[in-house]
Amino acid sequence: MSNPSLLILPGDGIGPEVMAEVRRIITWFGANRDLEFDVSEDLVGGAAYDAHGKPLSDETMAKAQEADAVLLGAVGGPKYDDLDFSLKPERGLLRLRKEMDLYSNLRPAQCFDALADFSSLKKDIVAGLDIMIVRELTSGVYFGEPRGIFEEGNERVGINTQRYTESEIERAARSAFELAMRRNKKVCSMEKANVMESGILWREVVDRVAKEYPEVELSHMYADNGAMQLVRAPKQFDVIVTDNLFGDILSDCAAMLTGSLGMLPSASLGAPMANGRPKAMYEPVHGSAPDIAGQGKANPIACILSFAMALRYSFDQGDEAGRLEAAIEKVLADGVRTGDLLAGEGVQPVSTTEMGDAILAAL
Amino acid sequence: MSNPSLLILPGDGIGPEVMAEVRRIITWFGANRDLEFDVSEDLVGGAAYDAHGKPLSDETMAKAQEADAVLLGAVGGPKYDDLDFSLKPERGLLRLRKEMDLYSNLRPAQCFDALADFSSLKKDIVAGLDIMIVRELTSGVYFGEPRGIFEEGNERVGINTQRYTESEIERAARSAFELAMRRNKKVCSMEKANVMESGILWREVVDRVAKEYPEVELSHMYADNGAMQLVRAPKQFDVIVTDNLFGDILSDCAAMLTGSLGMLPSASLGAPMANGRPKAMYEPVHGSAPDIAGQGKANPIACILSFAMALRYSFDQGDEAGRLEAAIEKVLADGVRTGDLLAGEGVQPVSTTEMGDAILAAL
Ligand SMILES: CC(C)[C@H](C(=O)O)[C@@H](O)C(=O)O
Ligand SMILES: CC(C)[C@H](C(=O)O)[C@@H](O)C(=O)O
Repeated sequence: MSNPSLLILPGDGIGPEVMAEVRRIITWFGANRDLEFDVSEDLVGGAAYDAHGKPLSDETMAKAQEADAVLLGAVGGPKYDDLDFSLKPERGLLRLRKEMDLYSNLRPAQCFDALADFSSLKKDIVAGLDIMIVRELTSGVYFGEPRGIFEEGNERVGINTQRYTESEIERAARSAFELAMRRNKKVCSMEKANVMESGILWREVVDRVAKEYPEVELSHMYADNGAMQLVRAPKQFDVIVTDNLFGDILSDCAAMLTGSLGMLPSASLGAPMANGRPKAMYEPVHGSAPDIAGQGKANPIACILSFAMALRYSFDQGDEAGRLEAAIEKVLADGVRTGDLLAGEGVQPVSTTEMGDAILAAL
Repeated sequence: MSNPSLLILPGDGIGPEVMAEVRRIITWFGANRDLEFDVSEDLVGGAAYDAHGKPLSDETMAKAQEADAVLLGAVGGPKYDDLDFSLKPERGLLRLRKEMDLYSNLRPAQCFDALADFSSLKKDIVAGLDIMIVRELTSGVYFGEPRGIFEEGNERVGINTQRYTESEIERAARSAFELAMRRNKKVCSMEKANVMESGILWREVVDRVAKEYPEVELSHMYADNGAMQLVRAPKQFDVIVTDNLFGDILSDCAAMLTGSLGMLPSASLGAPMANGRPKAMYEPVHGSAPDIAGQGKANPIACILSFAMALRYSFDQGDEAGRLEAAIEKVLADGVRTGDLLAGEGVQPVSTTEMGDAILAAL
């Protein structure tokens, strides 16, 4: 049997640097754990625009559809700010999500013990935090039509459409309940059903799916209250399920609670392929951080943990994922820190590569 | 000349209790500071539904249009959860905002010195915090058409429309810049221009308005990053301007940073009336808190501070507003606390009325 295939799309900014460390980790698993992958690399975002004049070529799109899993670094940068909307780096990422139909975006917000002090929140509020946000990723206002800027009378109007079908809500909800069954059996669904009809339908469908999971305790919360509760007492949550736009904001809010954005991975999953594996793309939650790109300062852990998620969700290698996560916890417990994990307390930061070295040594 | 008119709409849940304290404060200003108001009271939300079968009667709407300022308590409660969307308590509030054309919603997020410990954030992150969020309140996805739940093929689809005209963005932006001129001369505008065309138009119009205020430093931030930055380092902000939906979520997130939702007022302002005063409604940021309603436990400060905002923004009585705010700071410094301001440290909470007493005494 041939090895599973991994398509690596480092993208822009710090993407290539952090992905270089992931490649070393992948190599280690091939050499030491008998887990070999056929790895290929391609362009996305600004890098793809520079090469092909668009943020994702059709060839790369086709490769992503074929791959057993895609690993993406980050996209975007000031260089591309003035590009037309349809050519911006983000469109490459959004095309991948949409055409691979990656409807379930898993964003864990976990607080690492060694880093609990680093949060802007009080330690007892965040220590031990372990939430999973399931964000619907292929619909809603990100993709709804009509959209655009139109003339109307003597001025212009900007329009976007929030749009959810029952089946779109259903599959996202089901994926949240499935996760909850393997966790603490609690799902909180967030929308604005008090203001938006799309939120009413969302709530109704989530209630229906919940009937299939009688063991799971379901609650509903308006998204504005959700943002509050995340700040007030985040440990009340286990799994949160929400739409594309609310998920964008709430997951970033949750991510920041942990104090270490450079630590957080994500998985975007779709329907099973012929080989039983889900369509899948893994990426760090952080962005392309153009301000520190190319300086060897970036924290590769979020991207490495994204590969750990790939091991778990695409390749059914939960134990190996756990091995990698444990190595990272050890390195952190040993006090190894990239610059983003320091609050200027006199500890010397390590470089991106040195962090990779430390993790490899811990493995 | 006749006295200025105040229409009081206590609404549901704790609304009537907290508003009763506001009325005592209003009476005090009449008796002691020569500031007399013609006060009338009416129904909104569930209370209006119970009386008239709808969450705001046309008569009440007409009175609100005539009033020099409206003070609103809170709307909503579990009793009304199963009502049709068009009859829900929230629709009464939204009708007031829309028909009075209250496009500029001012939501200060201020951390009171005496309460800095009460935040879930570390004290140094929030002590001295003083942000003003300007939320556009009459447009966007709250009111855009088409909206509703429709049949499509063999399933249903929930649709809402995000919609902003240039002039809607312009007037909200202008109000943010005007405020910034009286504060620290910084405006940060938040949208998702990387994903939504309405955000692109938003950014463009804000840039244009900014030219009229060369002294104000303008920045732009994606709303997801905005949520992060609010949690990470909220003191970086002075005035934030954003749309209706982002404003709903981001202002609640900001409110929670202060640790004391029961403390935060808001003002919703429209265009000047014939007498030069803006159309205006003032309300606490907190909700109707049905769980503690009728028990005399609610904190009336947010509602009283909303009246202080009325003194400042509707009646040009900044000094008197300051007097009231100072009385509240004194009461807090003296350690007087309603239950929401206690984290179980053995201090005895005061009742809603006792808090009112303390503030009157401090005045
Ligand atoms: C880069 C951007 C298009 C993207 C989004 O808005 O979804 C990002 O913020 C994210 O959360 O992955
Ligand atoms: C009650 C509700 C309709 C309202 C809103 O969503 O605007 C509330 O959350 C607010 O922020 O004032």
